[in-house]
Amino acid sequence: MIPRLWRFSIRLQKHPPLHYFQSSPFSKVANGKTCAIIDGKSIAKDIKSRVADEINKMKNCIGKCPGLGIVLVGKREDSNTFVRLKLRACQEVGIASFLEQLPEDCSQDEVFDVVSKLNDDPDVHGVIVQLPLPQHLNEDKIVEIVSPEKDVDGLHPLNIGMLAMGRDPLFIPCAPKACIELLLRQGIEIASSRVVVLGKSKISGLPVSLLLQSHLATVSTVHACSENPEHITRQADIIVSDVGIPNMVRGHWLKPEAVVIDMGAKQVKDPSRQRGFRITGDVCYEEAIKVVSAITPVPGGVGPVTISMLLSNTLESAKRAFKFT
Amino acid sequence: MIPRLWRFSIRLQKHPPLHYFQSSPFSKVANGKTCAIIDGKSIAKDIKSRVADEINKMKNCIGKCPGLGIVLVGKREDSNTFVRLKLRACQEVGIASFLEQLPEDCSQDEVFDVVSKLNDDPDVHGVIVQLPLPQHLNEDKIVEIVSPEKDVDGLHPLNIGMLAMGRDPLFIPCAPKACIELLLRQGIEIASSRVVVLGKSKISGLPVSLLLQSHLATVSTVHACSENPEHITRQADIIVSDVGIPNMVRGHWLKPEAVVIDMGAKQVKDPSRQRGFRITGDVCYEEAIKVVSAITPVPGGVGPVTISMLLSNTLESAKRAFKFT
Repeated sequence: MIPRLWRFSIRLQKHPPLHYFQSSPFSKVANGKTCAIIDGKSIAKDIKSRVADEINKMKNCIGKCPGLGIVLVGKREDSNTFVRLKLRACQEVGIASFLEQLPEDCSQDEVFDVVSKLNDDPDVHGVIVQLPLPQHLNEDKIVEIVSPEKDVDGLHPLNIGMLAMGRDPLFIPCAPKACIELLLRQGIEIASSRVVVLGKSKISGLPVSLLLQSHLATVSTVHACSENPEHITRQADIIVSDVGIPNMVRGHWLKPEAVVIDMGAKQVKDPSRQRGFRITGDVCYEEAIKVVSAITPVPGGVGPVTISMLLSNTLESAKRAFKFT
Repeated sequence: MIPRLWRFSIRLQKHPPLHYFQSSPFSKVANGKTCAIIDGKSIAKDIKSRVADEINKMKNCIGKCPGLGIVLVGKREDSNTFVRLKLRACQEVGIASFLEQLPEDCSQDEVFDVVSKLNDDPDVHGVIVQLPLPQHLNEDKIVEIVSPEKDVDGLHPLNIGMLAMGRDPLFIPCAPKACIELLLRQGIEIASSRVVVLGKSKISGLPVSLLLQSHLATVSTVHACSENPEHITRQADIIVSDVGIPNMVRGHWLKPEAVVIDMGAKQVKDPSRQRGFRITGDVCYEEAIKVVSAITPVPGGVGPVTISMLLSNTLESAKRAFKFT
């Protein structure tokens, strides 16, 4: 475990002592510069281990465990993969999972019924609907009928509203919560930093902007209509990207010593891989590590921490339901 | 009425034809530059006249009129003034008003009861609580019990959440809606503009950021913790200020030809006035008009339009309740 003070030095010192980076398996040296590779996998492992400990304690004390209901519609390959990862993560920490699968052509009412059933089930403390949904379904309306008290994805308008207003929502969306966790564990100072968030999706970009703002960052949101995005990103101490365009953010978009949190994760064809593709982020990694002081890799950065935040939110919900502290 | 095309030229042309500005009572010439003074009073008058027409039509067709319930706690001079202005505006357009006054030392439950009564009253279509409330009351909780369907101030977390998510909230907060109206009527292009919002208050700064974002502006939010705010504001095509510090934004904070929307309105001592004070905005007006292409004056800019938006929201709510189109 890297001492917090050292991790903090990544941002504060222009020339951090080389021995730290050289001894860390999570740093890269390029062009004489060092760049810390923020290790999402190990952070996720740590969070999961704490969640598992708390669930064990809960089981021993009150004989109960948290439950997560997952609604999966259709057969999208990426959605299937995400759901599988979530189910496996639940199993690892001792959360009971309830998977509700619906066919691609199901009706809005069928989804409503399944969500309502999970809302009413006392063994279920978190309800999530795997997004995106097939086009014929109204995603907004479906997310809205998830009970705000079980909305462990934090995407209900009431929870987003509380987040926007700087109040404590019942749940903070998982990916944005993961970004903050990654920054804090890396010792990055968020308050008063200039942050540029690329993208304003309801699931990630928007709530991460709101969350960073509630952490007192000075946030600019750049999107498809923004002119000269690279001019804006070059002013940022922290760049959070949620665009979904592989390698869009080039090295010259970044300020030297900035910190990059890459939320993008797209499949890019790669015949050299057994699966025929590799997962690629929004930020051109090989260029970025020559410029910035710290970066999350893709895969292995934001992704694993996001899943661990889902487990953490589900535990939180169960503790609230059982009045277990 | 200034033709829309001319008004649009203020932003598009570096050297707009002088005859327009010279003939307009709402322009100022300083240092050889012209600056349009955005006339909130006349825009408010126009909106109120349309609202009054619609209400007349409603009365004639279904024999009903909109109703606005206002909760006023304590004896703050500014709150009293605002409530008086709102009551007078209601009367002007034909909205029935229901004022509920409570003493400074009333309990949270007493405010809850009054709000609930207005929530349940079928003659009341909008419920607002005049803010700020005395310190012993929980403002957040009180705003939250206003029925979202009657939340004509648009400050309920559910409505703010919808606004944040780029969805149609039941009501858009009045001051932010006024800002957009002022920009649109002035022919200012919002989409793809770089906008800096100074301040992130729940009532104005935050929702105006969200609303501008949903209009596809590239928004940066600057607040008390931001470093070098003037560096950020100098990059903005549009500056919206909601800080409440008279004359904080100086001329050198502004980009030439930018547009300024000043939401600030503080009393500043002025022995030369009969009342002993004058209302002053966040932006140093005399300096700004030498730099920018358009500005809202204080008073007479955002304020009157904000009140007209409250009337418009109340009418909208009544139309929804009566299914009157």
